[in-house]
Amino acid sequence: MTEHRTWKGAVFIAASVDGFISLPDGDLTWLTDPPPEPRHVPGSKGNHAPQDYEEFTAGVSHLVMGRGTYEKVLTFGFWPYERFRVLVLSTTLPDAADTRITVVRSVAEARQLLDLDEATSVYVDGGHVLSDFLRHDLIDELTVTRAPILLGRGLPLFHELPQQIRLLHLGTATSDTGMTSTHYEVVRDSGN
Amino acid sequence: MTEHRTWKGAVFIAASVDGFISLPDGDLTWLTDPPPEPRHVPGSKGNHAPQDYEEFTAGVSHLVMGRGTYEKVLTFGFWPYERFRVLVLSTTLPDAADTRITVVRSVAEARQLLDLDEATSVYVDGGHVLSDFLRHDLIDELTVTRAPILLGRGLPLFHELPQQIRLLHLGTATSDTGMTSTHYEVVRDSGN
Repeated sequence: MTEHRTWKGAVFIAASVDGFISLPDGDLTWLTDPPPEPRHVPGSKGNHAPQDYEEFTAGVSHLVMGRGTYEKVLTFGFWPYERFRVLVLSTTLPDAADTRITVVRSVAEARQLLDLDEATSVYVDGGHVLSDFLRHDLIDELTVTRAPILLGRGLPLFHELPQQIRLLHLGTATSDTGMTSTHYEVVRDSGN
Repeated sequence: MTEHRTWKGAVFIAASVDGFISLPDGDLTWLTDPPPEPRHVPGSKGNHAPQDYEEFTAGVSHLVMGRGTYEKVLTFGFWPYERFRVLVLSTTLPDAADTRITVVRSVAEARQLLDLDEATSVYVDGGHVLSDFLRHDLIDELTVTRAPILLGRGLPLFHELPQQIRLLHLGTATSDTGMTSTHYEVVRDSGN
């Protein structure tokens, strides 16, 4: 997995302050429909604000997600990913499950397909796939948005990693809804 | 635990981006001695910057921590808490373990002592005590600083909570060392 990649692996994900990407049952309303709260400090973008979701996805060629995230997306009632090729990492979904996706069985298979496809910017989504890709050194950038809530329990943003990963802080912005977004680059070859 | 308190419970704590306050063995050098990294974006305080540690502790009357944090502090070789009364929550430490601390056996006993003592601002430190105090609705403010690193494993900042807790975003600042600090207030009686 150390050979040169032609594509960048990028994460753009929201979590609670205590590090959950959804409630245990997949519920996201705490993120998408928080109660109005005019008392949050005014948002601030500054000179180093991370891209927003529209800007981020405008550059994406491929999306890789896990079965759990895929099944959550199906409940939306529309397919939000027309603009890029979507790989779903699953050992259980049938190959021909959905014409909008390509099912891959392993990170290695995902990587092979992304290489063959001459991917440029790969959006890596979902807690398990994010950590799988981090373990295989396939993530280059992360934008993590923190919603102003402690969920107490849920599906974790990060899973255990075998190594420490240093990050370079590229920028932080805050929103009127109390969100903070921070953009990091993965640091390699630091001699550590 | 719903009666009115005269004191404010406040958290001021640092964690990795993946939510650990130390490595499994208690190591903190990733936080205190990170390798130099001049490429982090310049720090930004803005109009709503959280207090720094000196400003925060200047207003503190009492500190409550767990035995794990206490034992970590003992390894520092000096006692950094001369300015306030220190309670250590432990079921195993002897009462007379250390003249610089008061051992308390439960959150209820800590609360009783803080009330009796007419505490004003209580600094709550350590992952377990933080979550214990959140469960008992004894935390009013949190300042969480994120160091630019994924540790992969370690002692968690937050433990499971029985309820969701909404937060009010009061301010965020970033540092030249890649840290982001966000100050939150606990929201109560939101009708949720």
